[in-house]
Amino acid sequence: MPKDKGKGQQLKNPKGTRDWSGDDVGLLDDILAQISTVFRKHGAKKLDTPVFELQDVLKGKYGEDSKLIYDIADQGGELLSLRYDLTVPFARWLAMNANIKSYKRFHIAKVYRRDQPAIAKGRMREFWQCDIDFAGPSDPMMMDSEVVATIVEVFEALEWHGQYTIKINDRRILDGMFEVCGVPADKTRSISSAVDKLDKMPWEEVRKEMVETKGLDGEIADRIEKYVTMKGGKGDSQSAVELLETLENDEKLMANDKAKEGITQFRTLMSYLKALKALDAISFDLSLARGLDYYTGIIYEVITEGSRPKHLTNSTKKESDDKKSEKKAKQVADEDEDRSNDPTVGVGSVAAGGRYDNLVGRFREKAEVPCVGVSFGVDRLFSITKSRIEQGQKFSYVTSQSPDVYVMAFGGKDFDGAPAERMEIATTLHNAGLSAEYTHKAKAKLPDQFKKAEQVGAPIAVILGQDEMKDGKVKIKVMGLTDESDPRKEGILIDMADLVTEVKKTLADIRDLPDVQKLDVK
Amino acid sequence: MPKDKGKGQQLKNPKGTRDWSGDDVGLLDDILAQISTVFRKHGAKKLDTPVFELQDVLKGKYGEDSKLIYDIADQGGELLSLRYDLTVPFARWLAMNANIKSYKRFHIAKVYRRDQPAIAKGRMREFWQCDIDFAGPSDPMMMDSEVVATIVEVFEALEWHGQYTIKINDRRILDGMFEVCGVPADKTRSISSAVDKLDKMPWEEVRKEMVETKGLDGEIADRIEKYVTMKGGKGDSQSAVELLETLENDEKLMANDKAKEGITQFRTLMSYLKALKALDAISFDLSLARGLDYYTGIIYEVITEGSRPKHLTNSTKKESDDKKSEKKAKQVADEDEDRSNDPTVGVGSVAAGGRYDNLVGRFREKAEVPCVGVSFGVDRLFSITKSRIEQGQKFSYVTSQSPDVYVMAFGGKDFDGAPAERMEIATTLHNAGLSAEYTHKAKAKLPDQFKKAEQVGAPIAVILGQDEMKDGKVKIKVMGLTDESDPRKEGILIDMADLVTEVKKTLADIRDLPDVQKLDVK
Repeated sequence: MPKDKGKGQQLKNPKGTRDWSGDDVGLLDDILAQISTVFRKHGAKKLDTPVFELQDVLKGKYGEDSKLIYDIADQGGELLSLRYDLTVPFARWLAMNANIKSYKRFHIAKVYRRDQPAIAKGRMREFWQCDIDFAGPSDPMMMDSEVVATIVEVFEALEWHGQYTIKINDRRILDGMFEVCGVPADKTRSISSAVDKLDKMPWEEVRKEMVETKGLDGEIADRIEKYVTMKGGKGDSQSAVELLETLENDEKLMANDKAKEGITQFRTLMSYLKALKALDAISFDLSLARGLDYYTGIIYEVITEGSRPKHLTNSTKKESDDKKSEKKAKQVADEDEDRSNDPTVGVGSVAAGGRYDNLVGRFREKAEVPCVGVSFGVDRLFSITKSRIEQGQKFSYVTSQSPDVYVMAFGGKDFDGAPAERMEIATTLHNAGLSAEYTHKAKAKLPDQFKKAEQVGAPIAVILGQDEMKDGKVKIKVMGLTDESDPRKEGILIDMADLVTEVKKTLADIRDLPDVQKLDVK
Repeated sequence: MPKDKGKGQQLKNPKGTRDWSGDDVGLLDDILAQISTVFRKHGAKKLDTPVFELQDVLKGKYGEDSKLIYDIADQGGELLSLRYDLTVPFARWLAMNANIKSYKRFHIAKVYRRDQPAIAKGRMREFWQCDIDFAGPSDPMMMDSEVVATIVEVFEALEWHGQYTIKINDRRILDGMFEVCGVPADKTRSISSAVDKLDKMPWEEVRKEMVETKGLDGEIADRIEKYVTMKGGKGDSQSAVELLETLENDEKLMANDKAKEGITQFRTLMSYLKALKALDAISFDLSLARGLDYYTGIIYEVITEGSRPKHLTNSTKKESDDKKSEKKAKQVADEDEDRSNDPTVGVGSVAAGGRYDNLVGRFREKAEVPCVGVSFGVDRLFSITKSRIEQGQKFSYVTSQSPDVYVMAFGGKDFDGAPAERMEIATTLHNAGLSAEYTHKAKAKLPDQFKKAEQVGAPIAVILGQDEMKDGKVKIKVMGLTDESDPRKEGILIDMADLVTEVKKTLADIRDLPDVQKLDVK
């Protein structure tokens, strides 16, 4: 053993990272299992890429955010960086596999961003993403609508019934609208990213940014206002179809080719979303712009109760602008060091995505592999679900991590504790597909063994008595019973040969017993 | 869209890494699911740690191999490195959580080593590990034997029946034996690592290294030879118990405290392994030393057919020493650039581990958290299993990735292709727990839709006919039927309202049909 260099060192996780253990990792796994089941229902296949990519692969894909990329130290050899999202690795994979013209892939993995962490909000430097993307040719909105349908199916599978809204817009409508309003072509993206802030700040602030910081003509800004305050759908004062009709009747807008294409296809999208039972969940929102450069068509973002900062939530919506600005100032100041204990406040979107038709072509010339997809922010889904569980909500897909059986033994002073016999029983149960534990003391006191069985939450104890063992008998006891008259509380003596059958029967029985529900039986 | 910097760049994975996709990732997931099911049966809980750790955490833990650690570039802030294994992060986590005195954890994740890759052998720079470790107090061999039992249960779950051997030794026996032979204390570890090479080279070479390179007295080396050539158990000429008896009768060895403790506990281990149905899989092998510094008791390593380099496999065992040396020289030369197409040859061990009682104490003073565990080399398990499947072997746990249903439609020239109706049917099937796909063309030719259904391997087609649709009827067709008289080959017309029931019934039926087995139905 070399000299000890470890002592006295700082013992912690790297900034913005966490260990997942205990009930947390159990809930995380349950959430991921629900999501991947939905993905597989749509025929999506898993892809798993390396945690790092050649630096060239990531270069120039994330605009200003590139500064948040983690680089691997140059130790000789290739220059590498940790992945920043799962989209660019997918595009790189498609470009490398030119024979693949069409693919449905999902990917569940952690991504890395050297951002300022805000733990309570679920903003971490290492965090989970869960992506589904469809690549290949498609008639207008056929693929896009199916991706939106997976969003609805995921949130229904997570039992967030009604507690989410899919904000949808289209880059073509947005860009066409900017053209119609008179935004110069070279200002389109910067004005677009100003518009995207409307979920975080009031119009006055956004207008100020456009005019004062970005040098946009005030009149153009006012024309933009007319559009970007339009919403229709879930939670809005008009339906998505009504908003669509307003746009279809807007002659100036319909005279713009881009806008017209976007609006026409939006009509198709609506009919598909209706068939896919997804229409009720959407809000057509002309202020949605999304930050990333590479989107070329439909874009969307999923918000849930508490996704918006406090100053913009329903309860405070009608406050005066003064009050809003006050709150906003405070909110911005707190942004990077949020220590709020309510993880459902201001977490931002819980899923987002859109169509990106040109990304694969940036890796391989003449590669025409149009794509559309969505990414779920799993850490946020986790934080919100956990907080709802703590508030008493039940989710049927949350599984127990307790073993089925705890195997124990007791006897007199001359008793060896039957370690080998306990192992043999546990092995028999394992081979029958059951989970079983026993204490790692050769001879343990019975109360200590019961304590451990309770700690691990086993619903059944299999108890070896020194005397009964000799007759080939063993006792099956149901843990946590309160009914004194139930013989299973004391334990029922059975033949060792019937062990597996009896344990399985008892497990099946108690899953219907109301008074052992508290044991959280699988 | 910013200027395109991507084109013309090298399009590849970082050296020593791979993408997992298609059937490969399906098989990988099936293997991981088998392993984690075994782990959970023993009551182990998942732990997930960040991909990187503070550099201090890894420092001084891996001896010479530390040079293989990937560092993260210093971009300001903490100094970080990618994890090298899952054991040190577990020890760090235990040290950070001082309230946890006892824990069974498993961890499935990728680890990172800047080693020379040998793809065909499954030696990668990014590779999967699958670890189970028990931490906390235990009576002698109670925990150790349970970990060995998980190894047997994993390989049985993977259906490698009989095709693996668990080589076991104990550091205390090894160190005591070195003392008895007269190895100076400061040479123990270096002589130990020379002994560990006996699975790669013949004794003559190892002796040469001991005497010429490491300056050991030749007589001492000869005394060592007597011990390290002793084996007993699976595939050996004597049983493990017989070897144990030889050691128990070795007065010199039993006079050494360390050796005596190890040998006595080995007797206990054997009785436990018998109870755990694990005894037949082991070979007690005094030449097993394992490279890592931190082991303090039992150590083990799992080999499979082809684990040993060719010159040491059974078929060549009886060759003359000359021939052996010749082959050995060749084998060493090839070692770092093995391009063999047979992944079962010379992959090394497929799992390894042991007891390490002092590692947690290196992170936190006075932390007494003894541990014992095993790590499965998943990439190697994958390569070997895949190669066996290619050779025609069947594994019952390998699942299909095909959807249950392909939804299609056909009609006359005036038919719109029923995109919305296909979506509605797919959504109904999804909500009933089934997987279903449809083509992303609004109006597709029927032969094209059949081709896609075949490509994705759907066992059932749901077919919408333009005329039948009007009557609320839909056809269910079983794909891949050869029996012309079976009406399901042509398709059976049913009421739309009965769709889910009929599809589920048909799926259940065809899982028993021999002539659609080739469709690889789930």
